[in-house]
Amino acid sequence: MPLSMLNEAVREWERALGVENVTLDAAVLRNVSTATFATTARVGAVIRPGNTEEVQRALRIANRFRIPLYPIASGKNWGYGSRAPVRDGVLLDLGRMNRILAFDEDLAYVTIEPGVTQRQLQSFLRERKSSLWMDATGASPDCSIVGNTMERGFGHTPLGDHAGNACGFEVVLPTGERIETGFSRFEGSKTGPLSRWGVGPSLDGLFTQSNFGIVTRMSVWLMPAPERFEAFFFLTRKEDGLADIVDALRPLRLNGTLRSTIHIGNDYKVLTATSRFPWADDSVAAPLDGAAMTRLRKTLSIGYWNGSGGLYGTRGQVKEAKRQIRRALAGKVDRLQFVDDRLLRLMARFSTPFRMLTGWDISKTLKVLDPVYNLMKGVPTESTLGSAYWRKREDPLSAPDPDRDGCGLLWCSPVVPSTGKDVRAATTLASRIVLAHGFEPQMSLSLATERSAICVTTISYDRHVPGEDARALACYKALTVALLEHGYPPYRLNIRSMDFAQGNDQYAGVIAGLKASLDPNGVLAPGRYERPVAVQEATPLPVVAVLR
Amino acid sequence: MPLSMLNEAVREWERALGVENVTLDAAVLRNVSTATFATTARVGAVIRPGNTEEVQRALRIANRFRIPLYPIASGKNWGYGSRAPVRDGVLLDLGRMNRILAFDEDLAYVTIEPGVTQRQLQSFLRERKSSLWMDATGASPDCSIVGNTMERGFGHTPLGDHAGNACGFEVVLPTGERIETGFSRFEGSKTGPLSRWGVGPSLDGLFTQSNFGIVTRMSVWLMPAPERFEAFFFLTRKEDGLADIVDALRPLRLNGTLRSTIHIGNDYKVLTATSRFPWADDSVAAPLDGAAMTRLRKTLSIGYWNGSGGLYGTRGQVKEAKRQIRRALAGKVDRLQFVDDRLLRLMARFSTPFRMLTGWDISKTLKVLDPVYNLMKGVPTESTLGSAYWRKREDPLSAPDPDRDGCGLLWCSPVVPSTGKDVRAATTLASRIVLAHGFEPQMSLSLATERSAICVTTISYDRHVPGEDARALACYKALTVALLEHGYPPYRLNIRSMDFAQGNDQYAGVIAGLKASLDPNGVLAPGRYERPVAVQEATPLPVVAVLR
Repeated sequence: MPLSMLNEAVREWERALGVENVTLDAAVLRNVSTATFATTARVGAVIRPGNTEEVQRALRIANRFRIPLYPIASGKNWGYGSRAPVRDGVLLDLGRMNRILAFDEDLAYVTIEPGVTQRQLQSFLRERKSSLWMDATGASPDCSIVGNTMERGFGHTPLGDHAGNACGFEVVLPTGERIETGFSRFEGSKTGPLSRWGVGPSLDGLFTQSNFGIVTRMSVWLMPAPERFEAFFFLTRKEDGLADIVDALRPLRLNGTLRSTIHIGNDYKVLTATSRFPWADDSVAAPLDGAAMTRLRKTLSIGYWNGSGGLYGTRGQVKEAKRQIRRALAGKVDRLQFVDDRLLRLMARFSTPFRMLTGWDISKTLKVLDPVYNLMKGVPTESTLGSAYWRKREDPLSAPDPDRDGCGLLWCSPVVPSTGKDVRAATTLASRIVLAHGFEPQMSLSLATERSAICVTTISYDRHVPGEDARALACYKALTVALLEHGYPPYRLNIRSMDFAQGNDQYAGVIAGLKASLDPNGVLAPGRYERPVAVQEATPLPVVAVLR
Repeated sequence: MPLSMLNEAVREWERALGVENVTLDAAVLRNVSTATFATTARVGAVIRPGNTEEVQRALRIANRFRIPLYPIASGKNWGYGSRAPVRDGVLLDLGRMNRILAFDEDLAYVTIEPGVTQRQLQSFLRERKSSLWMDATGASPDCSIVGNTMERGFGHTPLGDHAGNACGFEVVLPTGERIETGFSRFEGSKTGPLSRWGVGPSLDGLFTQSNFGIVTRMSVWLMPAPERFEAFFFLTRKEDGLADIVDALRPLRLNGTLRSTIHIGNDYKVLTATSRFPWADDSVAAPLDGAAMTRLRKTLSIGYWNGSGGLYGTRGQVKEAKRQIRRALAGKVDRLQFVDDRLLRLMARFSTPFRMLTGWDISKTLKVLDPVYNLMKGVPTESTLGSAYWRKREDPLSAPDPDRDGCGLLWCSPVVPSTGKDVRAATTLASRIVLAHGFEPQMSLSLATERSAICVTTISYDRHVPGEDARALACYKALTVALLEHGYPPYRLNIRSMDFAQGNDQYAGVIAGLKASLDPNGVLAPGRYERPVAVQEATPLPVVAVLR
């Protein structure tokens, strides 16, 4: 019966979406269930609705046959699970829904569908010669904006809190019903894309990091290009230099001088962003140890901690902000460099004379600076993908694809208070645990809000090395547990670690109750940001293996 | 049976909370069911839990006897319903829970219970010689901060979006269960008060403007006192001058130069804030018409539109902001005055010579300016209460109490896009409708977010004049309907108008489903921000009349 059930559902989806939008090809199904770490869930089919109504129909069919559907937008959830589902199911690929539905230059927003990528919005704004900037996350230019927002990803401009700068969702509920959130639900409302709360209980938060509905449309806020943009870069050569820097910059975050995240990477982070593991060098072994890093910091002219931030405003505002930053960081950094478009072009062209003048070898650093600088202007970059290949011995055959190429990549992303004390505790802990598991502790600290920082720790490895998959997941787990114990819970989870999502039984019970209310058959992305509770699950999909 | 049910519940509450914390006194019950407009719902008892556990117990008892409980914090929800419930029920007064549980000067937050008032937090910060500022809403110093946040009230500093600057809720669910939201739910978490989203679906938004739970604790963000604060005041004598001003200021909101709301009142608004209706003057009749207002604007030296805003930053930042504002408003206002602490003191002392120097009679305006100025520094004020007495013929007998004194006050609060065109449309419409119903169209426009404004229209009248209650509610309804039709839905509703809360059947259905999941017996504040749907209601309380 289960086999005939899936077969019948597939036939229904083919009728509803067109045969060309339902894929059963074994190679494709294997690919989409592959991530940058070991996955276990199998994909029975990929279906591709072209509009909201088709999403509704797809869900109604899923309900009829009790088959779990896992929505993906661009599927670039690298480091957290790529396209792969939490449990066995069918992928609902929203990539075809890629229209930009509204755009307002004066009120600074766009309304988009889930298939709209960072690259697409960037081009759209350029083509229209818009004076507006978007925010971009460091992932890929081909990353979906809606998808990233649903994962509560963050970027590097003042609009970096993606979930906090989007509103007016259109949501298809697990039952196939359609609602709009906030003021968008009022017919003819002019404020749906402008104001987040609406009236009555605010539902937007429910649909991020959840399996309560599929967001098929949302409005995203943009910012007017500032009269002046400058970035600043700094480094400290002290191992314990980070704490002082955080304590110095927090007041500038709190008082509004710094309106966007400050991004501070450790030496490992910069190294892995710019190069590959030196397998040819017999004098080093994995994981690179303190001695190796001391040499490499010198070669690369980098510090233990290397930071960047953006300044947005009028000429006068940026000038004043620079004064504040200089004062705050005085005596706490070994270098502080302000950079603007002109200087960056000059640096690229004249890196040698520049080094002679300033003593700073900028050529290697530029490779890291350039994409970071552009991200602060909301321009997406390809470059961050590189670090996924850190431990690989061979180059990618074609355009990089970490899933395909067996790149191991796990991101552990605790949130810590923006105090030197907490940041020191979290980074020391993370460094120790990751090294003990045999990986390089690549860390970046983002002062993402006025009061808290996200300390992304990257575990990057080669999936083709036997045993590494298991070791990496064990490392991730040990790290997450230890950070939780120290009071630093994660802001985001990967598909293998959703059991960390809920704190206690009461809370898990409420989430389960809401899920039951919105998804009585449990067909939408069971297990996503959900503690495993048997009651909530839809019928598993034993048929998948047979089909494939 | 129903009578014995309530009686029995009351006995249980007395056992759980102490006899002294259960009130059945008829006069008290009448008072608490009285608002600044006609109310219909009756209150059967007032119960006052002293801590979270007692709130849980109170709710469990309510569930056992199916008696609706309506939580109030300070009950200063003036203009929207004061303490009165939406339907018959028992009031759960959280006023005794007034502890400030945590305070962090570096990370700039406090954790408070619902009974904590604006005045209390203000004193707390002063006593500790804290360098932090709170935000304050214009209501009363005795207004509850949690209560105002739950209604999504707003203030005048950069932290003015109250719901957007609070997190880490402790919530007692309708069933009596207790949860914590965001990162607060993780035991030992250090980021609960600092970061809003947590991990997994974010629930905070569910508990504002809803009947899904009682927030018994929350963290509220504060801001470091800026190195420099200046306010600016402006006015235009052109009836249609508002549109240009909004179009000029929106870019400064969007680019971060203006980090807090700009508040722009019309002539009626300033008049009613500073004086009473001139009943003794035979030459005018209610509502005051155009000719009367022309004279009064002259007498009061005010414009058609009178605005204010705050500038927060370093000396350099404020100086640069002033330059931007001067440039933006040039040619669009008839006056622009920057004010700081020193000037305000001087103005108060030397208003006559000041008038001679500047030509501006500041003495009357000061009466309005002073509280507005302080609100922009987060200092709560008593003064705004005055306007509730605008149409009254007699002075309050003791400290003002609009509920007791028969002050008629209804606030209609549509959200409009921050464009000249929309603001013109909404204010013209509101003015016409309010005048047609015989009231003065007191309006204030708050550029509350970067993209949207809240246009609060006050209907203020004398409840002791027969027929006025009905006329005022009819005016409110006509106004809300017309604004909705034009695309401007309200940000907040009064207890008699909750039927405006939901846009369509699908949305109302989802809200009803969530309610059923969280409150199976429908005991928590039935009808609050809920479309009347018979199925959702708890047993009505026919016993109340008998008891009283």
